[in-house]
Amino acid sequence: MLKFTIKTEDKHSKARLGEITTFNGKITTPCFVPVATYGAVRTLDPEELKEIRVEAVLANTYHLFERPGADLVKECGGIHKFMNWNGPMLTDSGGFQVFSLGKGIEHGVGKIGFFPGLSVSKIKRISDNKNRFGNVKVAEEGVTFRSYLNGKVYEFTPEFSIKIQEKLGADLIFAFDECTSPLDSYNYTKLSMERTHRWAKRCIEAKTREDQGLFGIIQGGRYKRLRIKSTKFISSLPFFGIGIGGALGRTKREMRNVLLWVSENIDRNKPAHLLGIGQPEDVLLGVEYGMDLFDCVFPTRLARHGVILTKNGKVNLLNSKYKRDFSNLAEHCKCKVCKRFSKAYLHHLFKSKEILAHRLATYHNLYFMVEFINEIREAIKLGRFLEYKRDFLRNYKTRSPKYDSF
Amino acid sequence: MLKFTIKTEDKHSKARLGEITTFNGKITTPCFVPVATYGAVRTLDPEELKEIRVEAVLANTYHLFERPGADLVKECGGIHKFMNWNGPMLTDSGGFQVFSLGKGIEHGVGKIGFFPGLSVSKIKRISDNKNRFGNVKVAEEGVTFRSYLNGKVYEFTPEFSIKIQEKLGADLIFAFDECTSPLDSYNYTKLSMERTHRWAKRCIEAKTREDQGLFGIIQGGRYKRLRIKSTKFISSLPFFGIGIGGALGRTKREMRNVLLWVSENIDRNKPAHLLGIGQPEDVLLGVEYGMDLFDCVFPTRLARHGVILTKNGKVNLLNSKYKRDFSNLAEHCKCKVCKRFSKAYLHHLFKSKEILAHRLATYHNLYFMVEFINEIREAIKLGRFLEYKRDFLRNYKTRSPKYDSF
Repeated sequence: MLKFTIKTEDKHSKARLGEITTFNGKITTPCFVPVATYGAVRTLDPEELKEIRVEAVLANTYHLFERPGADLVKECGGIHKFMNWNGPMLTDSGGFQVFSLGKGIEHGVGKIGFFPGLSVSKIKRISDNKNRFGNVKVAEEGVTFRSYLNGKVYEFTPEFSIKIQEKLGADLIFAFDECTSPLDSYNYTKLSMERTHRWAKRCIEAKTREDQGLFGIIQGGRYKRLRIKSTKFISSLPFFGIGIGGALGRTKREMRNVLLWVSENIDRNKPAHLLGIGQPEDVLLGVEYGMDLFDCVFPTRLARHGVILTKNGKVNLLNSKYKRDFSNLAEHCKCKVCKRFSKAYLHHLFKSKEILAHRLATYHNLYFMVEFINEIREAIKLGRFLEYKRDFLRNYKTRSPKYDSF
Repeated sequence: MLKFTIKTEDKHSKARLGEITTFNGKITTPCFVPVATYGAVRTLDPEELKEIRVEAVLANTYHLFERPGADLVKECGGIHKFMNWNGPMLTDSGGFQVFSLGKGIEHGVGKIGFFPGLSVSKIKRISDNKNRFGNVKVAEEGVTFRSYLNGKVYEFTPEFSIKIQEKLGADLIFAFDECTSPLDSYNYTKLSMERTHRWAKRCIEAKTREDQGLFGIIQGGRYKRLRIKSTKFISSLPFFGIGIGGALGRTKREMRNVLLWVSENIDRNKPAHLLGIGQPEDVLLGVEYGMDLFDCVFPTRLARHGVILTKNGKVNLLNSKYKRDFSNLAEHCKCKVCKRFSKAYLHHLFKSKEILAHRLATYHNLYFMVEFINEIREAIKLGRFLEYKRDFLRNYKTRSPKYDSF
């Protein structure tokens, strides 16, 4: 049976401990969910995910729809069987991929703020053109877009997204939404949000499987009035859970505001998933405002670029200062990689373009995230989440100037 | 203590079971030794090698000399510690890399016959020019060549190769030799062989560490008189073991002849290593003629190209017929990959360029090689090696037309 139970609530913040029961096992919340785009958490064997104590993974509907195709996955017996993962699984709706193919590229933006390195003139030019579409066309019925793989034109509608997700067979699935850009105007964001609300209802209508929990997605961009409206509306529908989607603002401060508005108006009896967020500082913020689930490619992608996460911040192993550093990968980390390999060895493997480097760094980064979430859970249990957050951030050095300087 | 013990000898062939004791553990022979070029068996964690029951690995002296450098490896405490492999290790002498940078490219050849796809006119043109050198210059003192990484010019001498190998610290090391090409004339092969013999003595002189077993290398190309002479000469020197190097012929038939001549003249009390050979059919041939050790990138490289080894021959997972084949990776294989994943899943991972595909296929192929060698050992023990060989080859479909058609 699908259910969500809240176990402990923090007195000093909206942080809480809970448990989601699915047909393929339980997820303790808060939980960080690694991304398995094509049905594989990049570089890792599902057996290692179990070893790391990863509780759930999120696969991308759009990617799997393109390759190998939802019918093939269904024929195999579903995504769990296909990728040999017997724990809880999530699939997104495909909406974010439509965004990143369209506005994401056109506006040069991610979920929070800009891609690094964009000039002001380029941003202005982008903003002026922000209602023109390149690869993607959004209409009432759904979204038409061009495949980045083969150039084919597809139409994703709410009904189609649900159909694909039912074929894939994850435990928790998402309503099809339009993910707006932080550069979208109030009027466009409003128009889009209202359409997403109509799509939300269509998704509920379209759903046929009883063993999947459907999440609605709150939109409204960085606009207070819209976020509150969307939060109330999505909360009012019979969704199993609620995702917080779309542009979370142009800066981290705007993201905090969005979380505040959402947290004050959301149905607190449902699990809340902060979509696409996973930097440790953002996870802490999310937990503070009552978020239960997080997914992000950040720790795995970073690993493949040679960067590992430590309690003191990110460490770029490609830096030449690690060439002769024979100390363990990350101090105090108990993962099987850190216990056995040195910074110098991983530096060497990255320099030699050895795949093993990607594997080992990915393993460590996910282990780090799981440990981090475990500490958050423990802190909530002990009623000292805000102290934990303060202490963690004191040690964890991060700059992210690109996101904060708008 | 370093020693080699012969345990069982086959009555119907020169096949035998033995054991090499090194300061870092034992190697049962015959043994297939996977290649860890840069101090990592590509894609695999040393812990997986143990799981597969790999007994020893071979790292490339030339590659490690270039990156990360022998001094750095020594500073770390040696190659075992650097890559966290606590079993026996081998390093080659760098001679083969010098060959592949020079004649290998110039002549378009590998250890047996030609690179696929070379035209007859190209081969003729190459043959005519075969005494000119591009990147590599061989002289009495040693070999001068240009680094493929940074364009620097290095000189490898027998003394230098031993020095590097002593810094790396493998258990079994190799004398520096010139690896001739199958296209080299009798006269050039003779001249080169005699020089390699002088280098062999210089390597013995240069060696200082007592905990490393040095292998001399037999040269002489595909010429009977030279192979016999080289076999006798190298056997007469106080080496711990003997490698069979250089061009093993232009066809598999020529390779069989080379093995025959060698096997009749070699010091049978020493372990014999057939360098760079690892296709199952070649391993069987080698074992038949008394070879104890084999190393080759073949199973690991093939895996990264989507090809897995099975008892029925090679299976190219990229073939579209596997797209919907939900059967286990390889029938009857008991490895943890085959037990859990389907051909369709690996086909999908390869198509999606997921690194996990490379890992899983590599794991399976090495498991296959270890099982294969175990079966060979068992057959020798039971006195039925030749029956085993016949039965194996009956099922194992292989074409290798490029090698046999000269």
